[in-house]
Amino acid sequence: MSKATPHSPTARFDVSADLEYDIAFPSTFILSMHAQRSRLQTVTSEELVLEPKVKIEELVSDNDENHFVRFHTGKQKTLAIRYRATVERSVDLLSVKDIEATRVAAVDRRVLPYLFPSRYCQSDRLSRFAWDLFGKIGNQYQTVRAIDDWIFANVEYLRGSTDSETSAFDTVTQRTGVCRDFAHLGIALCRALNIPARYFTGYALDLVPPDMHACFEAFLGGRWIIFDPTRLSSLNGLVRIAVGRDAADAAVASIFGRAKGKKFAVDCQLAKGEKFTPFNRKQLASTCVSLEPAAA
Amino acid sequence: MSKATPHSPTARFDVSADLEYDIAFPSTFILSMHAQRSRLQTVTSEELVLEPKVKIEELVSDNDENHFVRFHTGKQKTLAIRYRATVERSVDLLSVKDIEATRVAAVDRRVLPYLFPSRYCQSDRLSRFAWDLFGKIGNQYQTVRAIDDWIFANVEYLRGSTDSETSAFDTVTQRTGVCRDFAHLGIALCRALNIPARYFTGYALDLVPPDMHACFEAFLGGRWIIFDPTRLSSLNGLVRIAVGRDAADAAVASIFGRAKGKKFAVDCQLAKGEKFTPFNRKQLASTCVSLEPAAA
Amino acid sequence: MSKATPHSPTARFDVSADLEYDIAFPSTFILSMHAQRSRLQTVTSEELVLEPKVKIEELVSDNDENHFVRFHTGKQKTLAIRYRATVERSVDLLSVKDIEATRVAAVDRRVLPYLFPSRYCQSDRLSRFAWDLFGKIGNQYQTVRAIDDWIFANVEYLRGSTDSETSAFDTVTQRTGVCRDFAHLGIALCRALNIPARYFTGYALDLVPPDMHACFEAFLGGRWIIFDPTRLSSLNGLVRIAVGRDAADAAVASIFGRAKGKKFAVDCQLAKGEKFTPFNRKQLASTCVSLEPAAA
Amino acid sequence: MSKATPHSPTARFDVSADLEYDIAFPSTFILSMHAQRSRLQTVTSEELVLEPKVKIEELVSDNDENHFVRFHTGKQKTLAIRYRATVERSVDLLSVKDIEATRVAAVDRRVLPYLFPSRYCQSDRLSRFAWDLFGKIGNQYQTVRAIDDWIFANVEYLRGSTDSETSAFDTVTQRTGVCRDFAHLGIALCRALNIPARYFTGYALDLVPPDMHACFEAFLGGRWIIFDPTRLSSLNGLVRIAVGRDAADAAVASIFGRAKGKKFAVDCQLAKGEKFTPFNRKQLASTCVSLEPAAA
Repeated sequence: MSKATPHSPTARFDVSADLEYDIAFPSTFILSMHAQRSRLQTVTSEELVLEPKVKIEELVSDNDENHFVRFHTGKQKTLAIRYRATVERSVDLLSVKDIEATRVAAVDRRVLPYLFPSRYCQSDRLSRFAWDLFGKIGNQYQTVRAIDDWIFANVEYLRGSTDSETSAFDTVTQRTGVCRDFAHLGIALCRALNIPARYFTGYALDLVPPDMHACFEAFLGGRWIIFDPTRLSSLNGLVRIAVGRDAADAAVASIFGRAKGKKFAVDCQLAKGEKFTPFNRKQLASTCVSLEPAAA
Repeated sequence: MSKATPHSPTARFDVSADLEYDIAFPSTFILSMHAQRSRLQTVTSEELVLEPKVKIEELVSDNDENHFVRFHTGKQKTLAIRYRATVERSVDLLSVKDIEATRVAAVDRRVLPYLFPSRYCQSDRLSRFAWDLFGKIGNQYQTVRAIDDWIFANVEYLRGSTDSETSAFDTVTQRTGVCRDFAHLGIALCRALNIPARYFTGYALDLVPPDMHACFEAFLGGRWIIFDPTRLSSLNGLVRIAVGRDAADAAVASIFGRAKGKKFAVDCQLAKGEKFTPFNRKQLASTCVSLEPAAA
Repeated sequence: MSKATPHSPTARFDVSADLEYDIAFPSTFILSMHAQRSRLQTVTSEELVLEPKVKIEELVSDNDENHFVRFHTGKQKTLAIRYRATVERSVDLLSVKDIEATRVAAVDRRVLPYLFPSRYCQSDRLSRFAWDLFGKIGNQYQTVRAIDDWIFANVEYLRGSTDSETSAFDTVTQRTGVCRDFAHLGIALCRALNIPARYFTGYALDLVPPDMHACFEAFLGGRWIIFDPTRLSSLNGLVRIAVGRDAADAAVASIFGRAKGKKFAVDCQLAKGEKFTPFNRKQLASTCVSLEPAAA
Repeated sequence: MSKATPHSPTARFDVSADLEYDIAFPSTFILSMHAQRSRLQTVTSEELVLEPKVKIEELVSDNDENHFVRFHTGKQKTLAIRYRATVERSVDLLSVKDIEATRVAAVDRRVLPYLFPSRYCQSDRLSRFAWDLFGKIGNQYQTVRAIDDWIFANVEYLRGSTDSETSAFDTVTQRTGVCRDFAHLGIALCRALNIPARYFTGYALDLVPPDMHACFEAFLGGRWIIFDPTRLSSLNGLVRIAVGRDAADAAVASIFGRAKGKKFAVDCQLAKGEKFTPFNRKQLASTCVSLEPAAA
């Protein structure tokens, strides 16, 4: 994809998340709600408030991208978490012409883990299914688009139809789910075809109803390309929080202990005065979108 | 565990693995059969021979421990892989007295992934089971020993009773398996109890029948402690190849393409003239074993 | 069990069920809410009212016990179902002394289907688990009691923790559920041990909260003996509606089409002036309870 | 289907089954290998020999069709079972024109159990899948043919790819299996669409390799119509042994105890001098096949 012409439509977003919990006993939280920082994503202001005040620790993943926060509740009985940020988001628009195949023999070592099955993406069990349906479609980019289209056409978005144990192996047959399930299925199918794929969580512009969003990224032509099989977001209207093998790696809140959610409100809007033209899906035939800067 | 008295029984092992494949069409292999190199494990000689000769690439994981090899078969129709190494292996024997609990709030960021469910270790689905059986046992070390004992007592080692899709959720009920299944169950139960745990593959001295071995490591008191719920190896008779979230991360051979195994022979013996006193399991009440050097 | 002294504490119960549905399009209902009729259960009055009025058909199972009702909604958009009955219920109290083992080689042909796995009772997958835990307990009656006790002790009754797809294979590990799940697990474990077992649905006196109840029956000494691993009912306070292999056979309402439940209210009370002494579980060491008349 | 013109091509078959077992300890066997007897299937000679000799009991199912045999091995250490029969087999060829839809509201009570999910046919979990793929295809006969075609086209017949725990929910995704798995999937999909369906076991003429065969029957227009999604048999070259909800009901040998199969040889050939014209699948557009006599 060296000949691609990166073009970067930029926009500023105001994102927020408000979570409230009843804490049954002292618990450790790992929160994954901070916007990532990268060449394509600049956090111009950011604030995390915990009430009551609890001492937090900021953690950054190896690749310096995922920012998360860890804290222990101590004896607090309730906890309110409020995150606000303004994020300037660019995307790389890449020409799909001449996308070179991702060859397992050549990909960077750090991409390899995204080839293997994970908790919610049992690519090993979906292998024959994936090859039967998608094994003979033109190049890899067309293959992943076919997967993306197939999921959109065959899985119904239905709140409450799945739970935290639902995995791609269930969804491929049950054919209902939410964004998380759509993403897991996309990932599993890509990996089954030897295409590295990973889970994406983020804020999505004007998502209805407002919520955290999940998509998936496939590694094509040396870049991580974003796909949203739910069709609920604009591909250039996403603020990335984290990536991981699947939802097990990138839960908004991983709780070690016991706490019960009382409120979960998320919002993502254009910053004041900002203009935004959604990426037109019809362009996907010629252009794809990456939210991940190319490695230096 | 700062007060532990590291004591390092050392021994030299000759290890080997001979694999042969029929290659159906050009495939990429990722081999994980090289002995790790660390303060506790010195590779004094090592040789990998592929026949016919194929160009290989050596890869090393972030932590500089897992060494693996990647290559593409090209048009070869068969492939013979022969690995030979002599490895000097030490272990840290640690006093279990005063083992401090692993607190999720405090563990190193790089340990966190080993708290989450993975393909074969669905700790999320085993949570209640784990807390019911092991939630009230003394300290964390005693808890993991109880898990290790329970698996040994309740799961029967039975070749051919499981396959590459079998996971901890199956094994906890079906109660048969091989070393891989025993390890997955140990890992899943630890994680369900908020104790980081990971998969271990290695060569095991005098294993009967000879094969690659799988164990698990739990993160206790700031160190990775080794457990073998099959009881088939001596804890100081192991040569570590790789660690990972589960078998998906540490397969001896991950094959992208299609190839069929014809031979799989593994051996691990004491080097000539070497003496060896197996670690006595009765000591486990007071002493545990780590194969992972403490972080600097 | 020929020496058992049948003793029949009798009581009259008023039972009722009120269901309401929104009908999305013309649907066929099969209702299983009528009290069975047998030597041990006399229906003294009974009324089923559908509103709007729909023509119904009464069906009776081969053994003349399960009474169910079938009807087609036609174009009705809503449907209210009201069932009222007064039932005189006896039980056979049987001495557990000298209970002869149920031998597969000797049981009546009609009992055989209750030895095989079914949708929610995968006895084939629970075989080793069952033999490990319950394979060496005295006689068959003691074995089933041990199963009943184990479920009560190890599975937590938790509304909303399971759904219509949950099966015994899930429950044995997840260890939460409702009466249906408790019954399925009991059945699966019995069958795994070659003891015929079946699903029971009925009205239960003073159940809190009021609902349909599910228990299981094991075939011991030539009789169907009732067990309630939830401990929520009195064994002589049950009015039997139906038996079957599992909940797939005995749903209160099987709907072919599409309808959405709006109301589901069930009640079971002593008839006016009636006295009732609950069967005391402590007696179970010497006495068990059958709600099924012995075959002639 | 009242206008159908039953036409009965008749042929005589010699069938045999030879099974040998090592008996670990005294076990009860239930054998299902006897040819059924019905208007369409006449057993002209039949012999069952057990060596050593063991006393057997013949059992017949309620509908007087399934014949099976039960015996206890006693202290025998080995057992050889030899079954030989000559069977005259007719089929009803029915016109598919004017096949009336099977309405749940109208089918005979004894057909109802074949609408519900069973151990290996989880129609409840395949509901959306079935409606998505097959919900809008002409009439019910065309629907079942579409299911039959889809399975043949999408599931690969692959010995050893599945085991006794494999169910339709697995096969729909894994897409490999043997006749048993093909049949389970066909049944589950029919039931999901409210079409009664059941499991069929029998001898199949010239099956390669020789083995017991499994197919499925769907209840259409008041008759049980046979389908073989493996395409390995001629629909008029089948000798029916048993029908049931799924393989759990109709295993060749259900063993209560412990025994290990040493030999399993099955054969089905035309009787001497007999001529046979296989039913031509191309006729299926206009004609279907029933092996079950219409109810009187």
